Amino acid sequence: MEIRVVENVLAYNKEHAQDNRALLKKNNIFVINLLSSPGAGKTSLIIETLKNLKQKYSIGVIEGDIASTCDAEKIKGFTDAVVQINTGGSCHLNASMIKNALQKLNLASLDLLFIENVGNLICPVNFDLGQDITAVLSSVNEGDDKPVKYPPVFIKSDLILLNKVDMLKYGDFDKDFFLKKVDALNNQAEVLEISCKEGTGINAWIHWIVAQMNKT
Amino acid sequence: MEIRVVENVLAYNKEHAQDNRALLKKNNIFVINLLSSPGAGKTSLIIETLKNLKQKYSIGVIEGDIASTCDAEKIKGFTDAVVQINTGGSCHLNASMIKNALQKLNLASLDLLFIENVGNLICPVNFDLGQDITAVLSSVNEGDDKPVKYPPVFIKSDLILLNKVDMLKYGDFDKDFFLKKVDALNNQAEVLEISCKEGTGINAWIHWIVAQMNKT
Repeated sequence: MEIRVVENVLAYNKEHAQDNRALLKKNNIFVINLLSSPGAGKTSLIIETLKNLKQKYSIGVIEGDIASTCDAEKIKGFTDAVVQINTGGSCHLNASMIKNALQKLNLASLDLLFIENVGNLICPVNFDLGQDITAVLSSVNEGDDKPVKYPPVFIKSDLILLNKVDMLKYGDFDKDFFLKKVDALNNQAEVLEISCKEGTGINAWIHWIVAQMNKT
Repeated sequence: MEIRVVENVLAYNKEHAQDNRALLKKNNIFVINLLSSPGAGKTSLIIETLKNLKQKYSIGVIEGDIASTCDAEKIKGFTDAVVQINTGGSCHLNASMIKNALQKLNLASLDLLFIENVGNLICPVNFDLGQDITAVLSSVNEGDDKPVKYPPVFIKSDLILLNKVDMLKYGDFDKDFFLKKVDALNNQAEVLEISCKEGTGINAWIHWIVAQMNKT
């Protein structure tokens, strides 16, 4: 019973995701769906990206949280094209929420759109939103065993960002172990090591985005 | 439609949770359901607790993960009474999973049982497992805005543990802000500041557990 309903929910989501994808494609907007645990640094990464690319592209941001507008407030200093979705308890964004949010953005003016999903390494994985790219951010402080304990998000992501590499010197994070486990799950995805705090790897991330946008 | 099914799932869960609670009470076992984001330090906290209390009490651990046995492997060095649940993708433990796990433990011999839930600050909150105490572990590295962004888990917990306080000196975590936001959501829960890495606050946590067990 439960499984059948989940399938219905996913089928319903798929329809909306297809609509979103068509609308975004029509407006020539490149979309990145950003996933991570709570506090891994999604908002900081988006802010670093805005700082680096807002002269070149018009960038929108959809912020997903179960409550509050604090992430949208932080983003507002860097772009006006920001919409906060409060899921009201739901553990992930779905394509229908994104469809509503897209109506609040001037799509004709945008080149690049970030969707910051709810901080959750599990549930958002199954919900296509209409994005071009799914990127997962895993932070050093969470430990090197995340690929072993949460395989689906690593399997389904196009890009894996290891954030807070400035913390490598304080902890017991075995980077080789992490990279080996990621590679065993998904050897197609690129892995970038970054620190939003110290700026490490941000250039590589910016180049990666620009290269992806030029491909489409 | 979706909401009605969720209610059914919760009603079904409630029945199993009541059965678990009765069984655990009959065996005089005190149960703590430990919630947190991925990598906040639940396993480390359980290990510190085992080190401090295994002479005094017989302690069991149920480990919940969507995949792997790595947490159970770590615990095995400190107690034989450990059961790993792999949820196979599900984002939380439910009472039915715990019912099965309890069959694999020698309940007559146990005084204290930890349930380490799946690393997820959202979904586990709604699923009663039959525990006496729900404790949430929030780590400094996740940022001071977690109570603002994930209110339900702070509202529904009996104890709030702020872990990795050794990291306060490196980051931008505003402890007063965090404590104020926690208090606004839940002024009944006790808040303990701990560092599993440096041992800070572990004595207070141990005393808290013993006091709770003596109450029942």
